[in-house]
Amino acid sequence: MLPQDVLERAAAEMLDVNNTGQSAMEMSHRSGDFLPVIEKTESLLREILAIPDNYRVLFLQGGAMMQFAMIPINIAGVSLGGARKTASYIDTGVWASKAIDEAGKYVKVRVAASSKDKNYTYIPDAPAPQADDAYYYICYNNTIFGTKWQVIPETGNTPLIADVSSCIASEPLDVSRFGLLFAGAQKNLGPAGCTIVIIRDDLIGAAPEWTPAMLRYDIFAKEKSLFNTPPCYCIYMIGLVLDWVKSTGGIDAMAERNRKKAALLYDCLDASRLFRSPVEKSCRSLMNVTFVINDDDAEKRGALEKLFLRGASERGLVNLAGHRLVGGLRASIYNAMPREGVEALVSFIKQFEKNTPRV
Amino acid sequence: MLPQDVLERAAAEMLDVNNTGQSAMEMSHRSGDFLPVIEKTESLLREILAIPDNYRVLFLQGGAMMQFAMIPINIAGVSLGGARKTASYIDTGVWASKAIDEAGKYVKVRVAASSKDKNYTYIPDAPAPQADDAYYYICYNNTIFGTKWQVIPETGNTPLIADVSSCIASEPLDVSRFGLLFAGAQKNLGPAGCTIVIIRDDLIGAAPEWTPAMLRYDIFAKEKSLFNTPPCYCIYMIGLVLDWVKSTGGIDAMAERNRKKAALLYDCLDASRLFRSPVEKSCRSLMNVTFVINDDDAEKRGALEKLFLRGASERGLVNLAGHRLVGGLRASIYNAMPREGVEALVSFIKQFEKNTPRV
Repeated sequence: MLPQDVLERAAAEMLDVNNTGQSAMEMSHRSGDFLPVIEKTESLLREILAIPDNYRVLFLQGGAMMQFAMIPINIAGVSLGGARKTASYIDTGVWASKAIDEAGKYVKVRVAASSKDKNYTYIPDAPAPQADDAYYYICYNNTIFGTKWQVIPETGNTPLIADVSSCIASEPLDVSRFGLLFAGAQKNLGPAGCTIVIIRDDLIGAAPEWTPAMLRYDIFAKEKSLFNTPPCYCIYMIGLVLDWVKSTGGIDAMAERNRKKAALLYDCLDASRLFRSPVEKSCRSLMNVTFVINDDDAEKRGALEKLFLRGASERGLVNLAGHRLVGGLRASIYNAMPREGVEALVSFIKQFEKNTPRV
Repeated sequence: MLPQDVLERAAAEMLDVNNTGQSAMEMSHRSGDFLPVIEKTESLLREILAIPDNYRVLFLQGGAMMQFAMIPINIAGVSLGGARKTASYIDTGVWASKAIDEAGKYVKVRVAASSKDKNYTYIPDAPAPQADDAYYYICYNNTIFGTKWQVIPETGNTPLIADVSSCIASEPLDVSRFGLLFAGAQKNLGPAGCTIVIIRDDLIGAAPEWTPAMLRYDIFAKEKSLFNTPPCYCIYMIGLVLDWVKSTGGIDAMAERNRKKAALLYDCLDASRLFRSPVEKSCRSLMNVTFVINDDDAEKRGALEKLFLRGASERGLVNLAGHRLVGGLRASIYNAMPREGVEALVSFIKQFEKNTPRV
């Protein structure tokens, strides 16, 4: 979901951006016309996320899946024939598990903690890194299970790496505590097709010789993300979204709105007899609110969920099915979701409960 | 450059595609709303390019640069520690050279022919493949030097692979003669951010175990390009461009217009005393027309080129500088360039020549 204001501006600027007479889709990426576009997007991102000067911002392609390979290859880079380095991962759900599987091709993965024992409904304690950890990896907000790290783990000199795909720009985050942060644009920043990597200077440059050029942080840092043709239109759209974040009060105001939206929904679920949030209260995501029918009978749960989804859809409340891998229900209330959208959902949840007889 | 009609339609549909109430930028890639979008784009591409049924169409990211690595890794896939296979490449300029450099990380590259001796102003004869060639690679249209293969090399059972980034959908091409064709979308098909790979069934599936998941043709073929979030908006835009190709008469009409546009420009250059095309007549590109000032004095050439570019720009004729790596002048007259644009350029070339005194 993108803010309506942003889409309207994109439509209005479709044939002419910055009085260039060109669409942002038509600009040559090395031209004087495109440079102000990418520079504006980077500068807004630095301002809104308070990115320190010793971090580089890279605009890449391939989504989080590509980072799952680029991180071990670049950060723990060793020749494939040589001895493998070790890296610690915390397993908090599907996306962390995918990162673990992919990293296993390049490093010895140490799963330092996992919440799999309770179906990923909490964030486990993060053990201290071990001496041989090349890095320490977490998924900060778990889109599918609806959990979020509330405290940044302390990893000392071991670079902490976090997937912030589904929570970037939703609330302030102390970038200086991380070695590398990355996010696919498509949750909170713009259309799919661009991945933002925020990397500390000293971590750039250890990729082994066999690394495909497109997978090297050092090349993209050196070429300021213009090594080859970048996803120009997506970078332009991210700029429009960040303009909107800034004009609506910046990251603090965004966080305040997000906390209130999430509280509306969690309060409703906590007060419900029919629904419940499966996630431990201390670990709840602001962006992805998972909920289930409060009944042990799987067949009854399934039938009621189906009824709920149908009724919601008739009221224009869509995309409420849980992820295909876990089922249940889920409301993704990213930055662009207005408070009114959450209020409408809360109101439907209450109505659905009222109309569902106790059995 | 994109056709004005296409941009206007994209603006009009920005907030609502196919009566879904969503922008193409907002669609969940596994949703019932996005599937018709990607299926329509693929089906138009198959129809317009006459792609045989035993070829798969993949929508990937990372541009031609990513294919330069994916091709050797997937098609000649061997473990990095093991013996390297050999592949033949024809060196016809900057993009072929980049492909050769990248492939050298994974295979033994045999440069079977090159036109470097005459600054890439012609297409060399293609020697027959050798018995140990895993594949045979050409760059079909050379964007920077303005040359194009006029005949598809005969490679027997050795898969022929071609970069068609800057000529795809510009004229008919017999897909069945190739093992794999690829093209970044940004020249003739849509905005930057999506790469189209057309691959023969039997070539899918040889990637070695260490290959990043995002670089495996087999995974994208199996998942119908939805392994992870694809560049949804770009795929939607490609569909709009292909709608336009079809509605303006399809590939044959497009080729006819392209041949006429190119002839206008080449005829003007061939009749000029001040300008000339450096490319051998039998090797000229329909898409990228390179030209130079016809004078041995480099300083004078440079000064006249600068004057020419300034005058052209004042008339709204932009992007006429040669590529930064080679200099000179270049008109890229892709599908979306109307005949009127070429006529305006021809008219300015003649006027500039008239106003430039013989010295």
